[in-house]
Formats: sequence, structure tokens, C-alpha cells
Amino acid sequence: MLRLSEWLEDALLRLNQTNSLQRKEGFTRLCFSEDERKSHKEFRRLAKSLHMETREDEVGNQWALLKSPGAKRTIAFGSHLDTVIHGGAFDGVAGVAAALALVYKLQKNQNQLNCNIVIIAFISEESARFGLSTIGSKTIAGRVDKKKWEKLYDDQGISIKEAMEAYGISWGTFDQAYDIPYKIDEFIELHIEQGTQLYKRNLPIGIVKGIATPKRFKLTVKGQANHTGTTSMKERKDALVISATLIQFIEERARKADLRNMGEIVATVSKINLSPSAINVIPGKVELFVDLRSADESLKDAFMKDLLAYIEGLSREKKVVIEHQVFVDEEAVTLDEDIQKRLKASCEELGLAFLELNSGAGHDAMNMAKRFRTGMIFVPSVDRISHHPEEYTPLLFIEQGVLLLERYLRQIEEDEE
Amino acid sequence: MLRLSEWLEDALLRLNQTNSLQRKEGFTRLCFSEDERKSHKEFRRLAKSLHMETREDEVGNQWALLKSPGAKRTIAFGSHLDTVIHGGAFDGVAGVAAALALVYKLQKNQNQLNCNIVIIAFISEESARFGLSTIGSKTIAGRVDKKKWEKLYDDQGISIKEAMEAYGISWGTFDQAYDIPYKIDEFIELHIEQGTQLYKRNLPIGIVKGIATPKRFKLTVKGQANHTGTTSMKERKDALVISATLIQFIEERARKADLRNMGEIVATVSKINLSPSAINVIPGKVELFVDLRSADESLKDAFMKDLLAYIEGLSREKKVVIEHQVFVDEEAVTLDEDIQKRLKASCEELGLAFLELNSGAGHDAMNMAKRFRTGMIFVPSVDRISHHPEEYTPLLFIEQGVLLLERYLRQIEEDEE
Repeated sequence: MLRLSEWLEDALLRLNQTNSLQRKEGFTRLCFSEDERKSHKEFRRLAKSLHMETREDEVGNQWALLKSPGAKRTIAFGSHLDTVIHGGAFDGVAGVAAALALVYKLQKNQNQLNCNIVIIAFISEESARFGLSTIGSKTIAGRVDKKKWEKLYDDQGISIKEAMEAYGISWGTFDQAYDIPYKIDEFIELHIEQGTQLYKRNLPIGIVKGIATPKRFKLTVKGQANHTGTTSMKERKDALVISATLIQFIEERARKADLRNMGEIVATVSKINLSPSAINVIPGKVELFVDLRSADESLKDAFMKDLLAYIEGLSREKKVVIEHQVFVDEEAVTLDEDIQKRLKASCEELGLAFLELNSGAGHDAMNMAKRFRTGMIFVPSVDRISHHPEEYTPLLFIEQGVLLLERYLRQIEEDEE
Repeated sequence: MLRLSEWLEDALLRLNQTNSLQRKEGFTRLCFSEDERKSHKEFRRLAKSLHMETREDEVGNQWALLKSPGAKRTIAFGSHLDTVIHGGAFDGVAGVAAALALVYKLQKNQNQLNCNIVIIAFISEESARFGLSTIGSKTIAGRVDKKKWEKLYDDQGISIKEAMEAYGISWGTFDQAYDIPYKIDEFIELHIEQGTQLYKRNLPIGIVKGIATPKRFKLTVKGQANHTGTTSMKERKDALVISATLIQFIEERARKADLRNMGEIVATVSKINLSPSAINVIPGKVELFVDLRSADESLKDAFMKDLLAYIEGLSREKKVVIEHQVFVDEEAVTLDEDIQKRLKASCEELGLAFLELNSGAGHDAMNMAKRFRTGMIFVPSVDRISHHPEEYTPLLFIEQGVLLLERYLRQIEEDEE
């Protein structure tokens, strides 16, 4: 029989349909694509090889079940199999492969468990194709908004509805995936960190406390367009110059909060539109798109309060109108405290150093947390690179994650004894 | 016979092919369009009605000559007839109509002159269609660059070459317009100010000292793209935040110079490109397009020196590469001092208050100045509005310009007596 690390590597290769986990062009498995389908098919094959029962739900999520005689509960693990364009081999896949490897290890050692194990390979977690993320887990969590979703198109002009139906999913009934095939008691996702906190401190495990969901808003500065040559400096209402002040305020306000709170809030002006946008015209109107994240809603609220007060003062001082419009406002997610406690105890038991941290990025776990007791662990990303062909997490780190999940299952049993 | 103001108004209406100089939709006569052609045809008709000989040169400029027996010299006047999209009835046309009205007035009064008068209606002054301005006067001045020009296309995908040939101009030979049909000794352009200095101070005449040509350059800030959620504030190299500092430096440096030097320098960041430009990615690379203008080259040089020193410091402090690339660098134009002196003397003679000022915008006169002794006068623009349907200059102001040009011709004669 293969060693755990060998089996894990094989699973990673199979799920990525590749001979090498580091390829120059990376991996492109967009949501509802043939490539995503192939990876899901591979998942079913691997699960079956582990004697698991498999099911595909109405939205295309894969479910695999390992039954234990006399099980008192069902613990679910999993992550997603799709990628961004030219992404890496680990974002998502690492979590699915780790869950499968956990089952492999349990079976190899002929361990008796008092719980059933479910593995979920969520469909379409990345927003790369339609600007909509975590489609599979949103559907499980009952967070489908068909009216909004049906307006989403990819770069080829294909609607999400068309893409789903081409994939074999019924637009009319996909939300029935809310009725899950196997009842589960809790869900734990293993994922690569995609940040720097673990790798640079040489810590193998991150225990996620909360997930910083984004608040996204647009600021519109309404200055006055004029000829760049004939308008003296003091006559101007240059919307871009006023925007520069806003960009700096947003950066500095987040930086200050960040220094005090250890990386708990981030704010970014990530897009900007000028109107007009011509070399000889002073920008009259500027739109700034801001992405604000924290796992702590009160930090976001305090940030917005300060920003709006600043905008009011700036607007008065510069005699311009500055409007703001929120277009995404997801409540931050706090993960289950009992699961965190047990994960910590398990780390200590195994002698694995860990860090408690928040996730800056969104994950399937944030939707699962709306419906189930949910936990999440991170394994390090080398040099924090992610969504890129050079994304890399050594097998050893994923294997340590598998050991932690195994220990976690024992911990439940021990806690009950 | 019509009074001067009546004749002038009629000429303005005819050249604009309209019944009203203020139309809701304004005037659209793009370069090398049928509408520009109609206006040029109207010019020839008006010039012929004044017994002037007319010629069209190889690039489409209209020339009209009024010969005087025993003339010692030839003085040229003129401006352009094309407009931007939804422009006004005065930018360009006012100068052509004023030159024609000057000839009308001289003939009406049966004045004997000791000089010939030439009127030039330049073709295609506005850059609105191809991003290339003052095509007619550039050609006369020998400033044609066919290799660069042939790469220019309008919004419809029509090349400048195609547009010129559709207009009846030969791409192969249009630059022969350098060999002008009538030898001229000097050139004076009357134009609306398009700024605020005259109208708000109630001054009827501006005597232009120089024309602030633009220096245009691109600054490229090379930071680092990263996930907006997983990258803590202190780990970032946000190219947009660094760009905000540059935008503010550029504004403040110009404002300071402007305060000290009475509106002699202006600087604008007028376009900006982010890469990537996605809501969940920190901008890794930002391009800023800067338009810097002054009629005084030394002011532009000092500005650039300060900016580059600032960039060097910023680049070191933020540990990012900031590149700069100049793509337009036209030398500022100083207009003929003798002509300015004579214009001033003429104003004083007539009791017309005037202001000596620089032009922030480019004009045909800047090209003519490369080859001929050149002067320029401004008449006020109401509320500085230009390139807009509401552009307006009362007839009285244009008429005062005509009187000044007439007095200028007398002044030459008197200076010679």
C-alpha cells in the first residue's frame, strides 16, 4: 500500500489531471467548464476507490459518504475543484485531496470510527468566470438569488443559466441542492492560506477564527471637467486630485486600524473610472471602487463612519459632491468556537505549532457556517503566491493538515468518553 | 450697405451655416468632414463677395487675397472653421469672420492701404477626430510627419489618409502646401480666449505673448498586485496609493508655481490606467498621463526637475520602480515682440483696455510662428465656456477686435511715415 504522502500526491495529480503540480501555464478549470467536470469525475473515482458512496446534487456538488457502523454523527470535510485562469494546483484541490487522504489513512490503518465521514467537492467556488463566487456552497446554504444571478454573463457573453444548463444542471431546480443527500453535523474545510502569516513564521497550521467578507462600495467625486491648458490651477475642481486625497485617507485609516489590530482590517481602492478620460481634459467625474474587509463587523462599521465623516468635510472644503453607494455588504463570518477549541487541542496533542487567524479571502466555509457548525484550517502557501501558476504548498504541509483532521476525529471520541 | 456689426453677424451665421449662433446641439464640423467643406465653401463665397482672389492649397486651407496697388507688404489674418463635437459657433470662426469683416470695413470706407491683405481659413485645427490638431497650419509650417500621421484613426476606424483622400486631398502631395500661394510678411490670429482672464475683468482685448504648448508624459508606478483580502496593509505595494501621492505632488507643485507666476503653468493628471483593474486585486501597475503646459520653457523644465527628484525619493522610500516617458514635448511659442508692441500701441490709440497674457491652449498661430512673424489677439469668452454649445462671445467684442486689427494696419503705415 502507498504511504499517505504518496497517495496524497497521486490524488492531487489526478484531481488536477496533470503529471506535475507546478506547470508554467498553471491550471485553468473555470466554473461549469468541461475541465471542472473532469475534475469532479476524478473525485468520484477516487472516492469510490475508497469504498465511499457518491452522489452529485442538483447544482453539481459532489458528495461522498463513508459510513461507520454505530456512528453517532457525521463530520463533513471538503473544498472546491475549480480554479481561476492560470491558477495553481492547490487552491481548493488541497482541501479535497486532504479529505480523501484522511479516509485513505483511516482505512489503511483499519481505524474504527464512531462517526460517518462526508466529503464535499463544491462546484464553482471561484468568481473568475461570472463574478459570482462559491456557487455550490451558496446553494447548499440556501443563499441563491436567481433574479440577480440570471443577469451574470461571462466574457464570451454566455449567461450563467446557459453555462449551468450546458453543464447538465437544471436552472429551474438547482436550488433543490439545499436538500442535502447526507445529513451532516459539522463541516471543516482545509485550504491553503494564500497569505503570509504561516509560511514566513514557519507555522504549519492556521486555525481560522472568522472570515472577512467584503463590503464593496463606490465613491463618486463630481468635480468639473475643463480644458487642461486654459484652466488655471486655482480655478479647478479636479475630481482626480480630490480622489487622490480619498485614496490616501482609505489607505491610512486601514493601516492605522491594522497596526492596532494585527491585520484585522484591509481596505483597497482597486478600480477607478475617469470621465472624461482625455489627455487635454481635467477629469470632471471620478468613480472609486473600494473593497473593505474584516472578520469583525464593528471594525468595518467604525471604518465607514470615519470615512463618511471625512467625505463630508472634504466635500464641504472642496465644494464638490461626493456620493457613495454600497453594492456588496456581506456580514463577516465567525466560525464555530467549539470546533476551534478542539482543533487547538488536537494541534497541541500532535505538537503542531499553530496560529489563530482570520481569513481575508472568502471560502465555501463561510456559506456552510450559515447552516452548519463550521471550522476551517489553513496550511501555508509558499511566498503567499496564489491564483498564479507558481502557487505552491509542499506535500508535507498538506499531510500535516490530514494528521490534524485525523486527530480531530479522535479528539471528538475522547471528549465523549 | 450693412453696418460692420451686421455684416460680421451675417458672416458668422453663414460660416456656421445656421440661423442662430446659439443652438442647443451646438455645432459639429469635424476635420475633413462634409460640414467642414461646406464652411470652407462659404468662406470662398464671402471672400469673393469682397472682391478677393481665392485659392485652396494642397491640404485644403483656404487663402484669400486683397491686393493693394503699390503695397509694400502682405499682412495675413485668419483662423479655422472646424469645430469639436457639439462645439460652439465662435472658436475659430470668430477669427475668420473678423478678418473678412476687416476687409469689408476697409472697402466700405474706401480706405487706401499700402499693404496686401491675406486671409487664411486653416483646415482641421481641432484634434477631436484624429487626436491631431492644427493640421492645416502644421502643413504650412512644414511640420508634417506622415509616418506618425498615417497611424491615426478616428472612432469609426477611418484613417486620416482615407479621410483626407475622401475630402479630395492627395496624401502623396498635401505637404506641398508648404509652398504657399501668396507670400506673406506676418500673420495675426484673432481667437476667443476660452479662459477667464478677460471676461471676468471686463477687458475687451488680450494680447498674446506666448502659447503654452503641452509637454505630455506617462508615469508608470510598478507596485505589486495581490489579493485585497489576504494581503495585510503593511505588506502592500499598492501602485494606486503611490500614484495618489504623485497626483497630489503634481497638483501642489503647479499650484505653487501658479500662485507665484500668475497662471503661467498648469499640470494635470488627466488619464489613469490600472493593471489589474479588478475589485479584489490590489492595483499592481498604474500608468498616469500628465499634461503640463507653460508658455515659458524654463518653468516646465523646473517643474520636471522637481518632479523627477520627488519620484526618485518616492521610489526609494516605497521600494518601487517609477518610470517616466515623454510622448509629446512641443517647445513653447513666443510671439513676435514688434507685433505685440504695435498691437499695444493700437489699443492705446483706440482707448481699448487690454491684458497681456499667454495662451493655455494651442492655436494655428503657434505653427505660423515657426515660419512667420506672428501675433495673436484674444476676445473674451463669456463665463470661459468653450468647446460647448453654450460657448458665447458677444458680437461687440469681435467688432472691437476688428477695429484693433484695422488700427494695427494704420499703425504700420504711421510707423513708416
